[in-house]
Amino acid sequence: MTLETEFVAQGPAAPRRPAHLTPLPLRSAVLHPESSLGRWQDLNGAATIPHCVENLEATGTIANFRRLAEAGENGPEGAFAGPWFADTDLYKTIEAMGWEIGRSGTDAWTPWLADLAGLMEKTQAEDGYLNTYVQGVEGQERFAHPDFTHELYSAGHLIQAAVALHRGSRDERFLQIGRRVADFVVKLDDGKGNPIIDGHPEVETALVELYRETGEQDYLTAAERQIDRRGHRSLEPGRFGSLYYQDHLPVRENTEAIGHSVRQLYLAAGATDVYLENGDETLLRAMEKLWRSAFGTKMYITGGHGSRHRDEAYGDPFELPPDRAYAETCASIAAFQWGWRMLLATGQAHYADEMERALFNGIAASTSHTGKAFFYSNPLQLRTGHEGSDEDSPSERLPWYGCACCPPNIARLIASLQGYTATGTAGALQLHLLHAGTYSTDGLSVTVETQYPYDGELVIRASGSGELSVRIPAWAVGATASGVELVAGEYFKTRIEDGEELRISLPMNATLVRADDRVDAVRGCVAVLRGPLVFCVEQADLPEGVVVEQLHLDPAAPITTETTEGDVAPVRLRLTGVVRALEPALYTTLPARTEGSAIEFTAIPYNAWANRGPGAMRVWLPVR
Amino acid sequence: MTLETEFVAQGPAAPRRPAHLTPLPLRSAVLHPESSLGRWQDLNGAATIPHCVENLEATGTIANFRRLAEAGENGPEGAFAGPWFADTDLYKTIEAMGWEIGRSGTDAWTPWLADLAGLMEKTQAEDGYLNTYVQGVEGQERFAHPDFTHELYSAGHLIQAAVALHRGSRDERFLQIGRRVADFVVKLDDGKGNPIIDGHPEVETALVELYRETGEQDYLTAAERQIDRRGHRSLEPGRFGSLYYQDHLPVRENTEAIGHSVRQLYLAAGATDVYLENGDETLLRAMEKLWRSAFGTKMYITGGHGSRHRDEAYGDPFELPPDRAYAETCASIAAFQWGWRMLLATGQAHYADEMERALFNGIAASTSHTGKAFFYSNPLQLRTGHEGSDEDSPSERLPWYGCACCPPNIARLIASLQGYTATGTAGALQLHLLHAGTYSTDGLSVTVETQYPYDGELVIRASGSGELSVRIPAWAVGATASGVELVAGEYFKTRIEDGEELRISLPMNATLVRADDRVDAVRGCVAVLRGPLVFCVEQADLPEGVVVEQLHLDPAAPITTETTEGDVAPVRLRLTGVVRALEPALYTTLPARTEGSAIEFTAIPYNAWANRGPGAMRVWLPVR
Repeated sequence: MTLETEFVAQGPAAPRRPAHLTPLPLRSAVLHPESSLGRWQDLNGAATIPHCVENLEATGTIANFRRLAEAGENGPEGAFAGPWFADTDLYKTIEAMGWEIGRSGTDAWTPWLADLAGLMEKTQAEDGYLNTYVQGVEGQERFAHPDFTHELYSAGHLIQAAVALHRGSRDERFLQIGRRVADFVVKLDDGKGNPIIDGHPEVETALVELYRETGEQDYLTAAERQIDRRGHRSLEPGRFGSLYYQDHLPVRENTEAIGHSVRQLYLAAGATDVYLENGDETLLRAMEKLWRSAFGTKMYITGGHGSRHRDEAYGDPFELPPDRAYAETCASIAAFQWGWRMLLATGQAHYADEMERALFNGIAASTSHTGKAFFYSNPLQLRTGHEGSDEDSPSERLPWYGCACCPPNIARLIASLQGYTATGTAGALQLHLLHAGTYSTDGLSVTVETQYPYDGELVIRASGSGELSVRIPAWAVGATASGVELVAGEYFKTRIEDGEELRISLPMNATLVRADDRVDAVRGCVAVLRGPLVFCVEQADLPEGVVVEQLHLDPAAPITTETTEGDVAPVRLRLTGVVRALEPALYTTLPARTEGSAIEFTAIPYNAWANRGPGAMRVWLPVR
Repeated sequence: MTLETEFVAQGPAAPRRPAHLTPLPLRSAVLHPESSLGRWQDLNGAATIPHCVENLEATGTIANFRRLAEAGENGPEGAFAGPWFADTDLYKTIEAMGWEIGRSGTDAWTPWLADLAGLMEKTQAEDGYLNTYVQGVEGQERFAHPDFTHELYSAGHLIQAAVALHRGSRDERFLQIGRRVADFVVKLDDGKGNPIIDGHPEVETALVELYRETGEQDYLTAAERQIDRRGHRSLEPGRFGSLYYQDHLPVRENTEAIGHSVRQLYLAAGATDVYLENGDETLLRAMEKLWRSAFGTKMYITGGHGSRHRDEAYGDPFELPPDRAYAETCASIAAFQWGWRMLLATGQAHYADEMERALFNGIAASTSHTGKAFFYSNPLQLRTGHEGSDEDSPSERLPWYGCACCPPNIARLIASLQGYTATGTAGALQLHLLHAGTYSTDGLSVTVETQYPYDGELVIRASGSGELSVRIPAWAVGATASGVELVAGEYFKTRIEDGEELRISLPMNATLVRADDRVDAVRGCVAVLRGPLVFCVEQADLPEGVVVEQLHLDPAAPITTETTEGDVAPVRLRLTGVVRALEPALYTTLPARTEGSAIEFTAIPYNAWANRGPGAMRVWLPVR
């Protein structure tokens, strides 16, 4: 599908009614192909998306459509394969293709997409309903178990895919399928005039995106009704209770991040999307409180969310164990997407700070250097002797999962990543993610040259003139622009003229960070950060005979930075501390404590761990 | 059922072929009725067992039998109620009654038991099979899903109940039902000559107990075959994998405590029982290694086992979060039962030390002062703001649970508790649990007067002469007998003459204990112990405006003991430390740390927590 002429398509979540910030059109931000994120985008298009397609074939996810589309008089042959929400893994892959076509102009998937559109058209019911689990498994009835069957979640991902494909390639065929699904959702009610809500939020943000793409007010109204209906315990509570699906309190009253973390964060993104379009301040106020709970009391330093394996859920405030961090990849992606919407709604830099934290740590760690293996859960610690046979917390990235929500979620995010970097209106540009690339708006285009996040020097060259705002991260105390000190945690706003070169310097010294006393699980420990990157110590970097658990950092010792090439991580840190002998007893009466012998050891970016085989790792280091 | 004449019945797990130690007959140990455990036994008989009966009626567990016993030609009416293993809650209650009748001679349950025997006789199939779930739910087939249906687990609890009732009351009717079930199990195979094993071990120890009670060798052989068969992946791996049921490695090779902790510990008790009867040293060696893994790397300081909520399982070594401690009540009970068997097998004091730790902490904490409310999970920390709606980790004890395994398990343990206190042969007595009571063997009877575990003074008076061994706990460094220093962690063995009075003095100063460095979750913290009791700080004891999370203990400050009467806890400790202001940010660059102001605060025994309403609590206290 070669693009014959240029057209202006929107990126992710561009409001029809911009509040503070206006996203750039999809092609107005281009990440430099040699930058770390630019390379990831290429890897995503060349490796991850094709890997998803292969696995969707291999696991029968596509066959679920084929068996319905090709069903004869006696109904479909063979059995439905995979979990009941399997369709959505396919939809997210299609969404990734939509963004990737928009980004790179590839036509590699044109025949595949056409085939698939055919299967979906044949599978979709007269009234727009489409779900290969409910349609393809005997005894299933539509919306008999909305707590469980993910039917609207699935509809949402189909709509998102249709929107992305329309934006990326002007494809009308999927958009029609998506609209028919959405039209069905618009009319759907529980027989008492209430909308049916789904155990897994997602359709909210999808409906708003479709409203943005089509201008059809009904879709926004349907999203508003989803938000208003949730929290009235209309869903069966199930094994984990109503709060698992955030159905225990109305959205405007539920100000503690709770329950299944991906559901909570998708819901928050949807509620913020509704605010962005209808301006309902009660929603924004609730979302600001919810943000403070999630990011102020329940977030891992890597930008991970969700500390419980049992129900993939948020824990109590400050319950943030590094070893049992669930920190699902999808939760960090959802947090990033919510952060973008809050940023658009308020223009406040701290939202972009958190997007950056998640992107370079929790999200980046999920994917191997091959682009073909993934973590579902992203712990901040793996012990020597970890039992890695559990699929939720393997010792290494796996190529695919029985519940394969994460890999295609990464694919769709990375393919659209440039859309989250900058905003702008005529003559004014705002740079949020400080990455090498070109960012353009009417009358002003800037090229950013930098090795950020590995280096703190940014050279920004203007073509055209206007107002330029650059986010100075909160950690970047002492940042300067051409020698003048800047305020960290705010946007540096300046006028830039055609041909002018602006040099921004962010301090990239390694810093030691500790957690609130109430985060019991990391008491007496520090995390080592450099710029936006969280570092970790991996067994692979330790001398023989020393295990990660023996290390204690000397917080007063200097930390040196080493750059490496062609290696698993472009930057490493050299730390100093002691190695303590392992203890003979689980519990000992005070005092009795060995001091240990001196050692220097290496830390690598957390996002690069587990690329050299399985082994122990830790982010939080005990202080000597 | 009044006992017409005296008879000699065995207590729990008395080997036919004693290895090192020989349990006393059931009635040869009597806990003093005013002692803490004696009072608990009375409360158990008066409150807990009747409470179980009420709830078994209310939840339909007994009705499951009634509907099958009274089924007409068209099959049973109404629906099966409760989880598929509901029968076992009833069996454990009957077991508790058996022990309690043996202990107190009560005849309060005679008609109820006769009714129930009638129902069970009617329900039991011709061939001995009995399971109201499989027999009572349409479409269920025997042993179609042994990974899941708990059919042998259920058979085991029925057998255990029959044995206890026979020991306690010479009841033959239940024993016949139990034997018919066991005879069925003896013949059961998978069609290829292999025994079928169950997803939940329990039948192993039950079969050995029935062998002990009847002398029927087939039952021991069936238990041996269960042990030999496990670990060959004959069970469907299911959601949590083969290791969840310890089916991943043969019992003699599986030396890491792993998977569902209650299953692991019941299995270990069963394997040790088999060793006790057949003397197979390969089993004992494996159990010793498994013990070191469980008690040396995976046990909470309260004697709790299992750190994961997801699958009620052991975590990795040293993964012992206090807040998400699962520490199921049943796991501590199982650990206690396994410890008894290892003690009998080896005579080593450390096994009794661990029984004591579990009994006075993990197990004792499970039950409220009313005897009618219970914890299923026994965390070592509850945060301010804990979301307590989750049934596995409520903020307060609940009267009953959907999965109600714990309350009747407590009932059966406490009713038989005196059976675990001492062992002996003619002219020789060994005291393991140092509690007020009378312990008798041929030719020697001793009465122990003490307030232990609240006080360290023991006065032991002999009637008759012989050899007396008294366990000196490992923590009791500096213990003396009539002024002579004793070796902690060993048995003090002495000759005692008729009328002689032996005074043993155990040091009861509060001590601070820290965990192995690798227990990351409690780094920088200490636990306060006094004697065998672990203490905790509860919100209820703090001044207004101070929350538990603000406390930091001064480890150098003296600790004073206060005794109280008619209160929630007979002993309290006064500690000194600082209160730190709550921090404004989740993550902070070093240094920046508030020092706090001085405070004295109270700690109570962990086993007494949550008897004054819900509220924050912690065992591990950060050190100033």
